[in-house]
Amino acid sequence: MINRQIVLASRPSGVPTPENFKLVENPVRELEDGEILIENQVFAIDPAIRGMLDDIQDSYLPAVPIDGLIPTMVLGRVVKSRNSAFKEGDYGRGFAGWEEYSILNPSNFAIENVHVDPTVPLTAYMGALGWSGITAYIGLKKIGEMKAGDTVVMSAAAGAVGSVGGQIARLSGCRSVGIVGSPSKAELVTGTFGLDAAINYRDTGDLAAAIKAACPDGTDLYFDNVGGTILDTMLPLMSDFGRIVVCGMVANYNDQNNPIPIHNLWQVLVHRITMKGFLAYEHLDMLEEAEAQLGSWIKSGELIALENVTTGIENTPSAFINLMSGVTTGKTVVRLNESVSTL
Amino acid sequence: MINRQIVLASRPSGVPTPENFKLVENPVRELEDGEILIENQVFAIDPAIRGMLDDIQDSYLPAVPIDGLIPTMVLGRVVKSRNSAFKEGDYGRGFAGWEEYSILNPSNFAIENVHVDPTVPLTAYMGALGWSGITAYIGLKKIGEMKAGDTVVMSAAAGAVGSVGGQIARLSGCRSVGIVGSPSKAELVTGTFGLDAAINYRDTGDLAAAIKAACPDGTDLYFDNVGGTILDTMLPLMSDFGRIVVCGMVANYNDQNNPIPIHNLWQVLVHRITMKGFLAYEHLDMLEEAEAQLGSWIKSGELIALENVTTGIENTPSAFINLMSGVTTGKTVVRLNESVSTL
Repeated sequence: MINRQIVLASRPSGVPTPENFKLVENPVRELEDGEILIENQVFAIDPAIRGMLDDIQDSYLPAVPIDGLIPTMVLGRVVKSRNSAFKEGDYGRGFAGWEEYSILNPSNFAIENVHVDPTVPLTAYMGALGWSGITAYIGLKKIGEMKAGDTVVMSAAAGAVGSVGGQIARLSGCRSVGIVGSPSKAELVTGTFGLDAAINYRDTGDLAAAIKAACPDGTDLYFDNVGGTILDTMLPLMSDFGRIVVCGMVANYNDQNNPIPIHNLWQVLVHRITMKGFLAYEHLDMLEEAEAQLGSWIKSGELIALENVTTGIENTPSAFINLMSGVTTGKTVVRLNESVSTL
Repeated sequence: MINRQIVLASRPSGVPTPENFKLVENPVRELEDGEILIENQVFAIDPAIRGMLDDIQDSYLPAVPIDGLIPTMVLGRVVKSRNSAFKEGDYGRGFAGWEEYSILNPSNFAIENVHVDPTVPLTAYMGALGWSGITAYIGLKKIGEMKAGDTVVMSAAAGAVGSVGGQIARLSGCRSVGIVGSPSKAELVTGTFGLDAAINYRDTGDLAAAIKAACPDGTDLYFDNVGGTILDTMLPLMSDFGRIVVCGMVANYNDQNNPIPIHNLWQVLVHRITMKGFLAYEHLDMLEEAEAQLGSWIKSGELIALENVTTGIENTPSAFINLMSGVTTGKTVVRLNESVSTL
């Protein structure tokens, strides 16, 4: 059985280019005890992967070696199982790579036998019902201690995590405000997602004034997906005892050696802010609650999932390059064939 | 009754100069119901006051107007009381100003009838047994969730809060490491205060390497009194799930309009750090425990209090200027007359 995989051909500088990636073919090895082999249906394309393509040792995720498989979350049908918790035909989800077949081992984190609801498109299990949605849910509810009545600001509010998070805040009785990078994304956030306000940071002369106008009582909770200038602008706008949840710093991913400097960190003291970085995978106690609540909202139509689907393993690098160029909305996924149901 | 007070004559630029201050005389007004009049014995000189001398609106403490009294914590004998919780001769402590007499009102925060132990020097109640010690205690124990076995790094470890905090960490079963700005302060921190290691940030070629060597297992808790470059250096050195307690950012106090930029904030995500700003006055639930524990350690000699005493209201500005020049160690206080007992 031949597995087609995308590996790292060379290290990108800034936004990746097609030459940084290479399609290779490798045989699938035999399973060991406890492992499952899945035929991937869909996998996730995430900005955080960008950080792993640099040769930087001091990150929370290890650097991908040259010729190494690009890692990601995958969802596939079980075609062979040497694990009693999975049988052929089940849906296995876990951390593997940009490839057609994956071997998942229960000792890996976050491996799950996903109970796929046939009325929900399969791709949703990589987005709003996958780790993007789960991350937004855990970040807001547990890390950010969100409560009804809070004013919540979400950066990258049209992105994979942000598009779900802004709606979770709205559905939880908060004033929900999104920051985005284009007029069409702003329209999406208020129109489709129903947020109270959207700010396009690229066309406001004074971003701080625009955020203040949208959040007249200050910001109780800022969910940060971007870092950099937007985080710097938010710091003085936080309410006393405000919380900043640091989920991603995509503004720095394309150039980790030159992170954007922050000038307003002093405001952590001025407003007695709590700032917390987190990885959702480390809060699995919240997984069941998150999946149940997100599934219920999606089925009822109260939460709109948005995705950006590319078909075929060979088109994976261009899907990633588009994502890192900031032109996409919602969750970026690759489905491995056209029969996979999408939103 | 005439009250001598120090008021703001002009706004300083950078480190204050004597011309920025003026000694004035004003009559003491009559008390209203609930108020007490105290004859001050000692008051505190704190770096945080520097921020209030700028005309910046967006701080947690209001700007001092020109000709306004410079605010501070004071401790004095009650000479008149219209409050049943205080009688003549008691020691009242509260937030007033650089002056010989103060009127304290119970609606002000942190007003206390201090039970002065005659075997403890009175000045200690402005330092290790006052809000400096209380701040260190609350910051480490409650905000920083310090536990035995933690590696704790304290910046400004020879300063008012840091000199007590480093010892609290040592006495709580932690590896306690201090960062200071001179060889004599380093000697003080390891010799007199008994910390495990001291680092003089001014004479290490590579500050990060020096901290790493002193904290081979990483830093679980960083108590930040300074902000700026030292905070930036600490961020990548934190253990996973490390805590940073932001107590002060003295590096920025002399020039609030040009705060030192932070490049490593991204590490909050890498190490899943929790960073919290706090004001001890907002955690009065800890006051009784803090005062009892600090008092016990000071009386037993396990905790060494250090202070830097100036005598006389007219010498207050120079005490403050010395403090802001970074040449002092321990708590800077002004005693109002020579009969006040010191350490």
